[in-house]
Amino acid sequence: MAEMKVTPWEVEGPVDYDRLIEVFGVKPLTEDLIRLTGKYAGEVHLLLRRKVFYAHRDYDVFLKRYGDKEPVALYTGRGPSSKVHLGHLVPWIFTRWLQERLGLELYFQLTDDEKFLYHRDYTLEYTNSMAYENLLDLIALGFDPKKTFVIVDSEDIAYLYNIALRVAKKITASIVKAVFGFTDSTNIGMYFFPSLQIAMCFLPSTIRNEKVLVLIPAAIDQDPYWRVARDIASSLGYPKPAQIHSKFLPGLGPGGKMSSSRPETAIYTTDSPEAVYRKIMNAFTGGQPTAELQRKLGGNPDKCPVFTYYSMLFEPSEEKLSERYRRCKAGEILCGECKRELAERVAKFIEGHQKRRERARDRIEDFLIRTKVSIRK
Amino acid sequence: MAEMKVTPWEVEGPVDYDRLIEVFGVKPLTEDLIRLTGKYAGEVHLLLRRKVFYAHRDYDVFLKRYGDKEPVALYTGRGPSSKVHLGHLVPWIFTRWLQERLGLELYFQLTDDEKFLYHRDYTLEYTNSMAYENLLDLIALGFDPKKTFVIVDSEDIAYLYNIALRVAKKITASIVKAVFGFTDSTNIGMYFFPSLQIAMCFLPSTIRNEKVLVLIPAAIDQDPYWRVARDIASSLGYPKPAQIHSKFLPGLGPGGKMSSSRPETAIYTTDSPEAVYRKIMNAFTGGQPTAELQRKLGGNPDKCPVFTYYSMLFEPSEEKLSERYRRCKAGEILCGECKRELAERVAKFIEGHQKRRERARDRIEDFLIRTKVSIRK
Repeated sequence: MAEMKVTPWEVEGPVDYDRLIEVFGVKPLTEDLIRLTGKYAGEVHLLLRRKVFYAHRDYDVFLKRYGDKEPVALYTGRGPSSKVHLGHLVPWIFTRWLQERLGLELYFQLTDDEKFLYHRDYTLEYTNSMAYENLLDLIALGFDPKKTFVIVDSEDIAYLYNIALRVAKKITASIVKAVFGFTDSTNIGMYFFPSLQIAMCFLPSTIRNEKVLVLIPAAIDQDPYWRVARDIASSLGYPKPAQIHSKFLPGLGPGGKMSSSRPETAIYTTDSPEAVYRKIMNAFTGGQPTAELQRKLGGNPDKCPVFTYYSMLFEPSEEKLSERYRRCKAGEILCGECKRELAERVAKFIEGHQKRRERARDRIEDFLIRTKVSIRK
Repeated sequence: MAEMKVTPWEVEGPVDYDRLIEVFGVKPLTEDLIRLTGKYAGEVHLLLRRKVFYAHRDYDVFLKRYGDKEPVALYTGRGPSSKVHLGHLVPWIFTRWLQERLGLELYFQLTDDEKFLYHRDYTLEYTNSMAYENLLDLIALGFDPKKTFVIVDSEDIAYLYNIALRVAKKITASIVKAVFGFTDSTNIGMYFFPSLQIAMCFLPSTIRNEKVLVLIPAAIDQDPYWRVARDIASSLGYPKPAQIHSKFLPGLGPGGKMSSSRPETAIYTTDSPEAVYRKIMNAFTGGQPTAELQRKLGGNPDKCPVFTYYSMLFEPSEEKLSERYRRCKAGEILCGECKRELAERVAKFIEGHQKRRERARDRIEDFLIRTKVSIRK
């Protein structure tokens, strides 16, 4: 079986989320913290309830500051290397919910520079155009333009550069080699880039001219950045950023996160209904080789990406989810039926998303930081 | 005797300029090239005539393109770590002459980011304020505001960043370790910085949207940047930058270039007349220990910083310079007299410079790139 590898640029092999908690030195999300979130938010989002967001750093501190009405904000982002798939939406859906329920500003970074520097064959024109394509998906989810500030690195560098310089001065080549696995063959753009992703943690403080603690909802592979950010925050006079980490939405194949490197196992937000049906009907499942065996032995929903799609995104009812789980185990439902129901729900979601995504084309300006915040030195 | 060390951040020990030509792999400036410059410029500047500018890369190519009326421009810069001294003015005086005589645009970079990153104790506020102080000296020399475009890195990063990304993608950590002596303990800001100094070579092409060959008049310690720039220029679709390299103005002490790390041996443009007199009267010279010995044995103008000041800046007449040389060697002039005459000339120059420098305070805007060129992606 493949080794687990989880870095900001590669996630390979079966992911052991408990081990990641140890490896990254983060904390499991407790029932107390979920309850407290529910108290402030008026409800508990299913991504919390079902522990898709399952680990954190200082989420308790973030909630305390929020409760004390001290300055907090949200920060997350996207490396625009490709079209957006359902896996990318998971942290955004949760972030949007936090924004709405807690009334928070969101600072959102599109790292077209990073993706240009990382991928040998990508041009900056390509990654920049992808940034705007991806932004349509973000807007389509319903973020509040008054409270959302989007930074496109290659165009909005002036907002980040002076913070990034202060960050970069605190970070040696040794550190980025150890934390990100860079080598002497890595290009010097990549060496500097962590400064920009870390600078975002401190941008809200700079813009608002007060000490703003940011909470970063993101998939756990981004954690290395935040470890470094936390190490240097105090020496720069900023609060340490807090994180809440999500698991990955699996791909439709056997094992591994949904990834653009395996397009037939990823559902893009721009896929046609036919593509959605085809990909899901071809999905790997936790079922038995034949209908007969399935009826006799039952399936394994715990190892089934199709079931995971229900639990992470497409079955809000706890009762119905439990019932589906039970029926699968008992062999009462066959994979074909289960997939067909999922495909219907996904196709319906995608259809609505695509409409909102097209309408977003006229609203891009409303979300860009450069249209609403002047640069403070 | 100390080892010679010449890097963009340190110049130590006695500088062997002939050896630098070999070490850096540049070409000596020939009489033919000086003559050709004179043909285009209508005169030969003393810094050329006296081989203060003494080595080059592709200066012949630059002159050919100029002669053929193909696009060329000038680029030089300053790391604003301190006040400006006379040594800094040498390349600028020559650059101004080239601008005026050949009618060329000058792109001038103030690397407040680099100086912040390099010096442990400097704040970005300090290096940025120094950038504007240094800019006053540049303006005081009489550059043409219509043809001069000043970039202050920390504020004008948006003009350079996208070019720098393309540059950075071509340069590995190995390269900057080998070329600049960086180690794993060097901060990641310094690792990226060469991209920005190199990006300047290509900024005129980007702004003018044609292939502009830049000539860089600068002290020879900056050469490592241009070696790397030339290596990658073609692959990015830009002409290789040409260079014309100057020697250093020596400090007033025994050996070494004028340096802010030894303030009593450096004459700042903001020095009072008293300070100018004091520093020059205390200067090391090529003279004998006593007046008697000097009269008997004569002095050594070839190893005398005072004589070098005459030859590099303060004695335009070839005849008078030769006569001073002869009289020194013959013991006909004592160091005190020679220093006093120099101090008078320097004090007079500084007095005029300070007046022009004060008037420059109202003219800063006229020189900044951000007041006249909009950012092209």
